[in-house]
Formats: sequence, C-alpha cells, structure tokens
Amino acid sequence: MPDFKVIEVNQSVYAVNDAIAAETREKLKRDKTFMINLMASPGAGKTTTLLQTIKMLDGRYRIGVMEADIEATVDAEIMQNAGVRSIQVHTGGECAMDAEMTAQAMQEFDTADLDLLVMENVGNLVCPAETDTGANANVAILSYPEGDDKPLKYPLMFTVCHVVLINKIDTAEYFDFDDDAVLECIHRLNPEAQVFFVSAKTGEGFEPWIKWLIDNINSRNN
Amino acid sequence: MPDFKVIEVNQSVYAVNDAIAAETREKLKRDKTFMINLMASPGAGKTTTLLQTIKMLDGRYRIGVMEADIEATVDAEIMQNAGVRSIQVHTGGECAMDAEMTAQAMQEFDTADLDLLVMENVGNLVCPAETDTGANANVAILSYPEGDDKPLKYPLMFTVCHVVLINKIDTAEYFDFDDDAVLECIHRLNPEAQVFFVSAKTGEGFEPWIKWLIDNINSRNN
Repeated sequence: MPDFKVIEVNQSVYAVNDAIAAETREKLKRDKTFMINLMASPGAGKTTTLLQTIKMLDGRYRIGVMEADIEATVDAEIMQNAGVRSIQVHTGGECAMDAEMTAQAMQEFDTADLDLLVMENVGNLVCPAETDTGANANVAILSYPEGDDKPLKYPLMFTVCHVVLINKIDTAEYFDFDDDAVLECIHRLNPEAQVFFVSAKTGEGFEPWIKWLIDNINSRNN
Repeated sequence: MPDFKVIEVNQSVYAVNDAIAAETREKLKRDKTFMINLMASPGAGKTTTLLQTIKMLDGRYRIGVMEADIEATVDAEIMQNAGVRSIQVHTGGECAMDAEMTAQAMQEFDTADLDLLVMENVGNLVCPAETDTGANANVAILSYPEGDDKPLKYPLMFTVCHVVLINKIDTAEYFDFDDDAVLECIHRLNPEAQVFFVSAKTGEGFEPWIKWLIDNINSRNN
C-alpha cells in the first residue's frame, strides 16, 4: 500500500515547518511581542475566553488577534465588534494552521507595535497539536461539557501545551467532571503544564491565568 | 513553496480511498449490513448516544461497534462493559479513519453476522468529514454546549452527513442555542439532512432517530 505512506510526506513538511516557526520566534523576540496559539475543540469557548481575557487586560497592552477558521468570518466579526485589532485567516479546508500560514497571516500586523499576539487556531484537538506555528506558548482550552477523559484520548494536545484552561466551570452541576482526575492525567503527560479552572462567561478563576499572561508579556521587555 | 503542495498528495490518496470505500459498500450490501460512521467534536456525546441507541434497539438486531481513537481504549471498554461486541481501533495519530483503515478494522467482524455496524470516528469536526470510510450513512452529533455556530464554521461536516443529532438538549437552560438558526444553517448546506434534537443522557427525542435507524437496517433485507 505505498499510496498510504503519507507519514513520510508529513515528516518532510514538518522539517520545513519547524524552520519557519523558528524564524517567527526570532522575529517575535526582536519585536518584543508575546504570541500565544490558542487551541481547543469546537465550542470549548476559545472566542469567549479571548474576549474575557482582553477585557481583564483592561487596555494595558497592544493586542492583535488572528482568527483561523476553515471558511467562516464570525469570530473576526465578534473581535472587531469588541474593538480588537483582528484578522480572519481561512485555512481552505486545512484542519490547523502551520508555520507558513501563520507567518503569512502575521504580515497583516506590525508586530513591533504589539505586546500580545493571539492566534485562535481551528477548533480541533488533533491536527493543531501536531504543528509548531511559531508561537511562544500553546494554550489549550478544555471545557466541562466535553468530559474529563479528553487528555487521555487526545494526549498530544495536552503534552504540547504550556497552559490548560479548564473552562465552563459555571456548568459544574450539569456535568460529571472530575477535576482531580483531569489534573492528574494532564500532569502525567506534561508535568510543567499550568492548569487553571475558569469560566469565560463569568470571569471566575481568571486571575491566575491573567497573571501568567502578564508575566509572560512583561518578560519580553526585560 | 513546492513543499506545501500537500493538496495534490491528498487528492491522489483520496482516489485510492474512494475505490476502497466502494468495495466496502459492496461487501456491506452482500452481507445485508447497515453501517454508520458516527462523527462529532470531542465530548459531543458519541459514546453516550451509541449506548442509548443500542439500549433502545433492545436486542432486536445484531450490532458491532468499532471505536476509533488516537490511542486510548476507554470507549471500547465502556462498550464491552455494556455487553456490546466492540473493537478498539488506534489511528496512530491520524485525525480520522480512512477507507483502508476502516476495511482493515472490519476484518475483525463477520459482517454477514451483523445487522448494524457502527464506527465511532475520532472526535473531530474537520478531518473525518473529508474522508469516505465506506459506511452507508454519516451521522454527525452536535451538542448544545458547543454552540449553534458550528455548521457555519465546519460546513463540510454538515454537508456530508445524512443525519445530525443535536445532543444534550437537557442542558438547554445553561446554553444559548438557537434551534431554528441551526436548522436553517444545516438545511442551507444540506437540504436532505435529517435533524433530530435529543438527549443521550435522558433518552428524550430518540424515537424518530431510532425509527430512522430501524428503517435503514430493515431496508437492507428488502
């Protein structure tokens, strides 16, 4: 079945990808911009989390947002309506942003003029985890309604992320979600992961996440 | 950028894939087995929906289940504990089952001895929609907590499916989900789609879905 040796093709693409991602990180360092790659399942609350985060940063930083979607523009419209500098990236069917697509999209911003750049990746727990975009930090969102078995079933996502936001904690009474079990599973995969329990809807639990973000933005200028 | 012309590679793989999918459908026809490919985001309720469906079919049919996951075995264990003939398929990092992987997995069953074969695909709204597995019908699950904008953002999934189950309607008071808007969007993409509003947890709304399934299983013997 030589037609199915897709793996080798991917590996050669990955090598090119990683070189572009390294260039992106060099540029971000020069421009003193902190960039995060926000990943999650569809509907886990990426856009709402981002809106709440920007609200809590309260105008202290210059922020840019790249909304990646297969083809819709709803998220960029939401950002624009909230007064956030944003662009919509269409992946043309691709299930994740790669480093080349990310670098192309970043040309729409003058990163030297930004403190924080956020890419909201395509909603997906598989493909985005496989591709280095060039961002400084990977942030994954997992929400209560999805269930606490997701790190077990999508281990790569929870292995490559620096931060996990467990979202929709305001719906706790509706869903059986074991906080301790999910923490244990994430830390077994990734002992360094920062895990914060939040509600993007109410803002509950956001303080340590905002502190983590501010510390990282500020460290670019030191 | 010749290294990024992945699309052409995919197209040639798809042609091989579709030929294998057609062979699978021939075999299912000969064996009088109805096969569904169950797709959804992670945590939309695929496994719970399947358990409720099997319970409501009440032993009338011989059922086999293929649980596809990146690497975990939790779903096959749940099925086995519920007394369902099931196997676990590991995709080895691939974000969806293709026709070859499906055909290989089906060899674990004697399909002539099954009325219904269900493949629970990898949790993902993008990749599984792109690949014909050889199943007779694609069934997508979308849950209230994910939001009513998902057909807009992941249109291919809702275009290729025959049935959409809108799940977790028991959580209506917690989430702003516009039933009419989602119906309109799905039917704009796919006028033939059957859409059923259900709660896999409580069984509410399952009757028309079970009737659709029974009609399709029975039609194999006519």
